[in-house]
Amino acid sequence: MSKEITSRSTDYSQWYNDLVIKGGLADYSAVRGCMVIKPYGFSLWENMRDALDKMFKDTGHVNAYFPLFVPKSLFEAEEKNAEGFAKECAVVTHYRLKTDPSKKGALMVDPDAKLEEELVVRPTSEAIIWNTYKNWIQSYRDLPLLINQWANVVRWEMRTRLFLRTAEFLWQEGHTAHATAKEAVEETIQMLNVYADFVENWMALPVIKGVKTENERFAGAVDTYCIEALMQDGKALQAGTSHFLGQNFAKAFDVKFSDKDNKLDYVWATSWGVSTRLIGALVMAHSDDQGLIIPPKIAPLQVVIVPIYKGEEQKAQIDVKVQELVKQLKAAGVRVKYDDNDNARPGWKFAEYEMKGVPVRVAIGLRDLENNTVELARRDTKEKQSVSMDGLPERIVLLLAEIQQSIYNKALAFRNSHITTVNTWDEFVNIINEKGGFVSAFWDGTSETEDAIKEKTKATIRCIPLDNPQEEGTCVFSGKPANQRALFAQAY
Amino acid sequence: MSKEITSRSTDYSQWYNDLVIKGGLADYSAVRGCMVIKPYGFSLWENMRDALDKMFKDTGHVNAYFPLFVPKSLFEAEEKNAEGFAKECAVVTHYRLKTDPSKKGALMVDPDAKLEEELVVRPTSEAIIWNTYKNWIQSYRDLPLLINQWANVVRWEMRTRLFLRTAEFLWQEGHTAHATAKEAVEETIQMLNVYADFVENWMALPVIKGVKTENERFAGAVDTYCIEALMQDGKALQAGTSHFLGQNFAKAFDVKFSDKDNKLDYVWATSWGVSTRLIGALVMAHSDDQGLIIPPKIAPLQVVIVPIYKGEEQKAQIDVKVQELVKQLKAAGVRVKYDDNDNARPGWKFAEYEMKGVPVRVAIGLRDLENNTVELARRDTKEKQSVSMDGLPERIVLLLAEIQQSIYNKALAFRNSHITTVNTWDEFVNIINEKGGFVSAFWDGTSETEDAIKEKTKATIRCIPLDNPQEEGTCVFSGKPANQRALFAQAY
Repeated sequence: MSKEITSRSTDYSQWYNDLVIKGGLADYSAVRGCMVIKPYGFSLWENMRDALDKMFKDTGHVNAYFPLFVPKSLFEAEEKNAEGFAKECAVVTHYRLKTDPSKKGALMVDPDAKLEEELVVRPTSEAIIWNTYKNWIQSYRDLPLLINQWANVVRWEMRTRLFLRTAEFLWQEGHTAHATAKEAVEETIQMLNVYADFVENWMALPVIKGVKTENERFAGAVDTYCIEALMQDGKALQAGTSHFLGQNFAKAFDVKFSDKDNKLDYVWATSWGVSTRLIGALVMAHSDDQGLIIPPKIAPLQVVIVPIYKGEEQKAQIDVKVQELVKQLKAAGVRVKYDDNDNARPGWKFAEYEMKGVPVRVAIGLRDLENNTVELARRDTKEKQSVSMDGLPERIVLLLAEIQQSIYNKALAFRNSHITTVNTWDEFVNIINEKGGFVSAFWDGTSETEDAIKEKTKATIRCIPLDNPQEEGTCVFSGKPANQRALFAQAY
Repeated sequence: MSKEITSRSTDYSQWYNDLVIKGGLADYSAVRGCMVIKPYGFSLWENMRDALDKMFKDTGHVNAYFPLFVPKSLFEAEEKNAEGFAKECAVVTHYRLKTDPSKKGALMVDPDAKLEEELVVRPTSEAIIWNTYKNWIQSYRDLPLLINQWANVVRWEMRTRLFLRTAEFLWQEGHTAHATAKEAVEETIQMLNVYADFVENWMALPVIKGVKTENERFAGAVDTYCIEALMQDGKALQAGTSHFLGQNFAKAFDVKFSDKDNKLDYVWATSWGVSTRLIGALVMAHSDDQGLIIPPKIAPLQVVIVPIYKGEEQKAQIDVKVQELVKQLKAAGVRVKYDDNDNARPGWKFAEYEMKGVPVRVAIGLRDLENNTVELARRDTKEKQSVSMDGLPERIVLLLAEIQQSIYNKALAFRNSHITTVNTWDEFVNIINEKGGFVSAFWDGTSETEDAIKEKTKATIRCIPLDNPQEEGTCVFSGKPANQRALFAQAY
């Protein structure tokens, strides 16, 4: 087989890249730090996007589209937000190219076409959106405004990894406006719950819901809520964030509304987003040394059927059986493909679909025809069994649900066995360095301690879990009094 | 009513802007030439996108995503394409902002973060995609490659109009690769037919299919096919294009494949696209002085139900009836809204939904309850009738289909009555200036004549219709021999 994958134990990072590229999810591009999302990867993203989009609409949100560019003066308006993103902004300075007189066939930036004001390619859209909301909101009757946008954004990252950290990525960003702080906080929490629901029930990936410390907060937010997942190498990955923005953006863009008593006040805001980064999380959480493992609910292809035959006559017999099966599976809403391409041998196909993480493989040969059976193989456990063709569609539908649950259970068991409670600094360092995963430890609540721990161990506070018990303790690092534990981990 | 619309006869152009803005489709933004697509407009785009996307997938295409940026050196590679777009390119030159020491709270472009090579914000993606295809195509087995992308593109237009011509717009661009010229031409025509099918059967807008002259051809194409529609002011609008690119991009990016006999040849290409410009066409083709008229198949909202009552008791009685109706309509796949917001009066709601082009309005009052009737009003003809509640959902479903057909028929009759065959230059000028619409006239086949006609009348050759009869004639402008007629019009 030409498509060999580096094993996790040999080089985890190379294993990840191999899966992404050889599994057909994405490719490098000619643009530094930007990726090409290949058709198979994009189909996965479409399934994720459609499921999320429905959840957003079911909670009352609508989609819209705002400009790609943010004029520099708007970008500056919310100071913390601007500071947070200034160092990674792609900036458009000119609007025309012209023939380069010094090189045949070459073009150059036309110095006469310099923009009066530079345009920032959006790293996030709070600024341009709140500048627009100013015109849309006058009265409490205009609230709440519950808008989401699916878009590309650009953050000029120095070290990039396919899906996990790219200069351009696709995402959705919700931006809502409310009459009261209470309502905005409720929205923030609601969307955090939507994300957790999606990641757990569609991506089969358990998450911990929590709130970020000041160090890790979104630039411009009052509070950043997050869901944190665990990868197989023991590192955490932030899978989604939901921000309570207070009145920061309303004040920066002067967005006021008159309430029922005709009193003017600034509007309360939230924003929340998940991105194609989730695909990186999916790959790293579930896959193995043979390739991708994709949960059935979002798999581009759920079932592949491979015929095993010699000669046209056998093929024709198999075709009849398979076409009936395909019809029944499609009627049951299953994404199925009959791969009867005769340029490739069954063994090659088996390896290819294993690489691509297709949850269920059906193989059917001459003996199966005689016995009225097929060979049914599941990707996650690699179990194979010979089963009757009678009732096969129903059996496959049940199997897909079972695989979905089984992938989740496996990830949950791994995650739960990698939350370690420690009470001393030695334990802390030892767990972070040896076992990995989340470490639950008392923290004195200061940024200084957080910074010092990060410097010594590369571990950051992933979150303060929601409903964290308040208890007396001693900070694992500083020895100062602490009133709760935080969840630390090294992270992507 | 606060939302008054300028009438078509007063100022057609202002009428259009009023509809787009007051109808809730789009808004101006703080970025020169870029628009905000508002939730109602975006919902319309989603319906259009989903219908097209299904048609693309049904014809074997898959979606992918390629980078927003094109390095200048790649952009230059296909010379004609580069020339064609160079004058309207937004160019990223820097990747960082920093604090401006001269102004408190201000940011400036960091001169130390200048890119070695400038990045063009894609005006179209042939260059970046064919540079990628180079790595994906080696053998005839890799062909055809049938990929589409939904994306934003930027063309720095000097005069912008909402939807019709904006610096940033949303579109889809198909980019396919084939082993033979014949197959690529067939793909080009197939996608032209898909576009015509969509615009006629979903947007209710009749189109003429044809091929562009050299003057109007896509930069880098061998042939550009198009669909041309007619607006109510007698101007034409190019609603979609499908390009046969020959081997131009394969040669520019050195994309070769080995055929079955192991012979190397350059790959054959097509590209095709439609954009949010279609929304502009939709608005201008069907709407009237009271607001938008949107064909039911793509309308964000197909039916609105407005209660007319005094007091809670009447309202409660109406609610019971309406909730049952809503349930039945939803079950029949109808997009329906019950607007029982008591902040607005029925008359205000009627005008509002007329403005927004909701195809069917159902009003229900106390007398209707007594008589077991409702008032059914259609937006396109403004006909109203009192009808029985019995069988109402079925009646509404039929009415929606009838409205769809009726809007198309009206546009078709208008278009057909605005194709004028002329044989003299006086007639030509007179028709273009007085009546408008398409003018069918003999043309000598030269760019010089085409340019001269454009200069004198602002009319361009919209297309040479497919299957145009070949006949002897005399060019309407130059008097030289001509072998066919071309279709001229002033155009958006």
